[in-house]
Amino acid sequence: MTTRTIDLNCDMGEGFGPWPMGDDDAMLDIVSSANVACGFHAGDPNIMFRTAETARRKGVAIGAHPGFNDLPGFGRRVIRGDSPAEIERMIAYQIGALQAVAALAGHRVTYVKAHGALNNMANEDEDLAMAIARAVKGVDPNLVNVCMPGLAMERTSEKIGVPVAREFFADRTYEDNGTLTSRKKPGSVLHDPEAAAERVLRTLEEGAVTTVSGRRIPVAVDTICVHGDEPSAVAMARTIRARLEANGIAVRPFTRL
Amino acid sequence: MTTRTIDLNCDMGEGFGPWPMGDDDAMLDIVSSANVACGFHAGDPNIMFRTAETARRKGVAIGAHPGFNDLPGFGRRVIRGDSPAEIERMIAYQIGALQAVAALAGHRVTYVKAHGALNNMANEDEDLAMAIARAVKGVDPNLVNVCMPGLAMERTSEKIGVPVAREFFADRTYEDNGTLTSRKKPGSVLHDPEAAAERVLRTLEEGAVTTVSGRRIPVAVDTICVHGDEPSAVAMARTIRARLEANGIAVRPFTRL
Amino acid sequence: MTTRTIDLNCDMGEGFGPWPMGDDDAMLDIVSSANVACGFHAGDPNIMFRTAETARRKGVAIGAHPGFNDLPGFGRRVIRGDSPAEIERMIAYQIGALQAVAALAGHRVTYVKAHGALNNMANEDEDLAMAIARAVKGVDPNLVNVCMPGLAMERTSEKIGVPVAREFFADRTYEDNGTLTSRKKPGSVLHDPEAAAERVLRTLEEGAVTTVSGRRIPVAVDTICVHGDEPSAVAMARTIRARLEANGIAVRPFTRL
Amino acid sequence: MTTRTIDLNCDMGEGFGPWPMGDDDAMLDIVSSANVACGFHAGDPNIMFRTAETARRKGVAIGAHPGFNDLPGFGRRVIRGDSPAEIERMIAYQIGALQAVAALAGHRVTYVKAHGALNNMANEDEDLAMAIARAVKGVDPNLVNVCMPGLAMERTSEKIGVPVAREFFADRTYEDNGTLTSRKKPGSVLHDPEAAAERVLRTLEEGAVTTVSGRRIPVAVDTICVHGDEPSAVAMARTIRARLEANGIAVRPFTRL
Repeated sequence: MTTRTIDLNCDMGEGFGPWPMGDDDAMLDIVSSANVACGFHAGDPNIMFRTAETARRKGVAIGAHPGFNDLPGFGRRVIRGDSPAEIERMIAYQIGALQAVAALAGHRVTYVKAHGALNNMANEDEDLAMAIARAVKGVDPNLVNVCMPGLAMERTSEKIGVPVAREFFADRTYEDNGTLTSRKKPGSVLHDPEAAAERVLRTLEEGAVTTVSGRRIPVAVDTICVHGDEPSAVAMARTIRARLEANGIAVRPFTRL
Repeated sequence: MTTRTIDLNCDMGEGFGPWPMGDDDAMLDIVSSANVACGFHAGDPNIMFRTAETARRKGVAIGAHPGFNDLPGFGRRVIRGDSPAEIERMIAYQIGALQAVAALAGHRVTYVKAHGALNNMANEDEDLAMAIARAVKGVDPNLVNVCMPGLAMERTSEKIGVPVAREFFADRTYEDNGTLTSRKKPGSVLHDPEAAAERVLRTLEEGAVTTVSGRRIPVAVDTICVHGDEPSAVAMARTIRARLEANGIAVRPFTRL
Repeated sequence: MTTRTIDLNCDMGEGFGPWPMGDDDAMLDIVSSANVACGFHAGDPNIMFRTAETARRKGVAIGAHPGFNDLPGFGRRVIRGDSPAEIERMIAYQIGALQAVAALAGHRVTYVKAHGALNNMANEDEDLAMAIARAVKGVDPNLVNVCMPGLAMERTSEKIGVPVAREFFADRTYEDNGTLTSRKKPGSVLHDPEAAAERVLRTLEEGAVTTVSGRRIPVAVDTICVHGDEPSAVAMARTIRARLEANGIAVRPFTRL
Repeated sequence: MTTRTIDLNCDMGEGFGPWPMGDDDAMLDIVSSANVACGFHAGDPNIMFRTAETARRKGVAIGAHPGFNDLPGFGRRVIRGDSPAEIERMIAYQIGALQAVAALAGHRVTYVKAHGALNNMANEDEDLAMAIARAVKGVDPNLVNVCMPGLAMERTSEKIGVPVAREFFADRTYEDNGTLTSRKKPGSVLHDPEAAAERVLRTLEEGAVTTVSGRRIPVAVDTICVHGDEPSAVAMARTIRARLEANGIAVRPFTRL
């Protein structure tokens, strides 16, 4: 086994105003890193505060989870028209907002993970990826950028010296080029907790992601992405954690708290 | 003369998206401190960046100018229903956002001045004033809070050790209790640059604000608020600066850059 | 018994984008009138469409439920600063938006009920109440305005010839002046479905609202307001409908579909 | 000469809250049709009201000018992810909102013209164009849809029986496929009022648009689009109107008021 500790990360704080989303309390007992929505695609100062405060109490690291300014579309819509410089400022804005709210909660932002369409677009667009990397570095050079291995965000981050954490999605299959299989394809999303846990363990043990064609892409995974927006998702996250621990792999933040 | 240097502050960066407001470039040649809107009542990441960058180049200090989340009302509408804790987080969010965007521009936020209805309400509501003071301190204990002398915001800031800068409005008359005369009353807003400059000089020389009834309220003024949203306002600011300098008073930020 | 049919109304379509709220499907089997949020305090074009379409299929009338432009505060925050003319346009905007979306769904808006803080404020402010009444009339003189009996909204509506429907809240107690007892007072909100149903029946039978002091205010109630945002609320609505029907009172829209 | 009257249309009401845009008063003396922003990419209920009221007084027709829900990007950003049905509801919402506000102003919406990125996308996407056409028809089958000749919006409108008005852009050059030359190409935007007026006259006289390659596309133009967001644009619109009238072509709305 190549890894004795691993991080579990999950998107959180994705309610808005009067509208909750997901069972963050349950998830904060399972994961070691919480990707906190920053008010642009979801989240607001109060939800950000509560998420940061609960995370601090439970020893969970927090990261900024910035997205497009798109509440109606939850940051999942592709929005084109902003220059890389404009994207950079938009990302910085959100990171800073969470840093300040986290300070009120006695916690500290240690990483960044881009959300939704912004993240997907950045994995295919070197300029956009660089804009995000520059924002991360510009706000705080110690912030870690969570990236899919082998894609543009990882490359640009490394190019300008932004620390990266490589992420593996527990419930998604991978194409040979390292991207996720489209959700539209049957079988691309795993719903069985045991099967997902099995894949996670195998990926960590082999130090490689196995793609849909059977190809192995060597990857030193730093963090496993799980979901928490449905009851079944919580169950899957719980199973993955239990299986990791049963195999002697402790769940710990990839960043120092 | 009791003062050899004084600060001039002005609200800036109050456009939004495609809509500009005011002649910030002209004002940044006149004032020493720019109160930068943080995206809630006005401003956006791009405007914040440009304001911070220009301010840095011109040696102008920048402060966060947080307001209610009220673009349609420009933060001038009274909004009741948020708890002090909720206000605190909303303020922190905006300060942090500007800090991060300013970092991209190579500048640093050194103070906070609440905007519009939020500021007015805080001057009459100790709990609200304390919420703002706590936000300022919680984000960065070195941040200076710009306050009207003798009102709730100054008191609460001092109570919890937040540094304050006392502000005098160049173009407004004062009531005996230290508040501004309502804009609705005739004569409450000065439009003549020379008259405004005269009042500023007198206030600094006497170390006291003279109210509409002729009462003198002793005040150690740290900063003079001028406006920049109309051509005539720019002219007034220019006149005030010229008169200050002609009287041997240098215009300098009240905070270290 | 003075009434053989009565209307049950409920706020609906109060999700936003990715965030649902309440069990609208269940409620649309219980009530006869759906107050549809119009995108300012909640709701969006898609939710408005689905609510209107389901209501049409189930024979439920729809009304516009306009509120302040306040998604973060769900329209519950008091917002002061708009003139009555500005309020009038804001209300008209929302009514028209729902009319058009309802047309796509093959349904028709037959009434208006103001939401949250706007409604509360209008009950105490004749100018604001008149602004709402004028908006209702200006958009379509056949629209019925749902009002609390004896307060400003009813008076102003009648003054300019806007048809009104008088509303009784199933789960709230009343003060002697006809307003609702503050939620903060113990006992002001009924949680027991049977007790609420009993009060509804008594109010209809007596043609009078009994206040907390025991005073009776004669009222010809046209519609009973129930809630649907919690599982327990759905149960209460169901009980009230069952008890009405068991007493020979049919639940029907107060407006012609 | 094939035309004795022609319509001039212009985007208007594109301020928001405290931020004005363009010289609408000047333009409403020049054009015969005002495309009124509906609050999604620009405009708000107050601006919509004032535009509709002034247009009514000056005998100018008004059309809904719906766009993406994108204030920061002014509706110019491409946003992908909404289904055609979702676009249809979003358009209907905006048309209905303007209808209601126009009713308060004593005016009536007689046409629709999609804004910015939405319009551009619809000209290249049959499904999106059909969504817009269906919204127009669903809200009011008498509404005219303003289209670029020969592209998807015109085709889908005609397919489902939506009346169309064919538009010619006074200050833009055309490609052989009937689309506008990209603004990025030099010479694609005309700045000289006389040159623009000359092209307008020639297009009307010839009943054909001459493209950059010299090809002629036969078009029965119903309306000329002019701009009003800059002082020079107002001058160009004025020149075009004067030249039209000097050539015996009266400027009149293409719809009955």
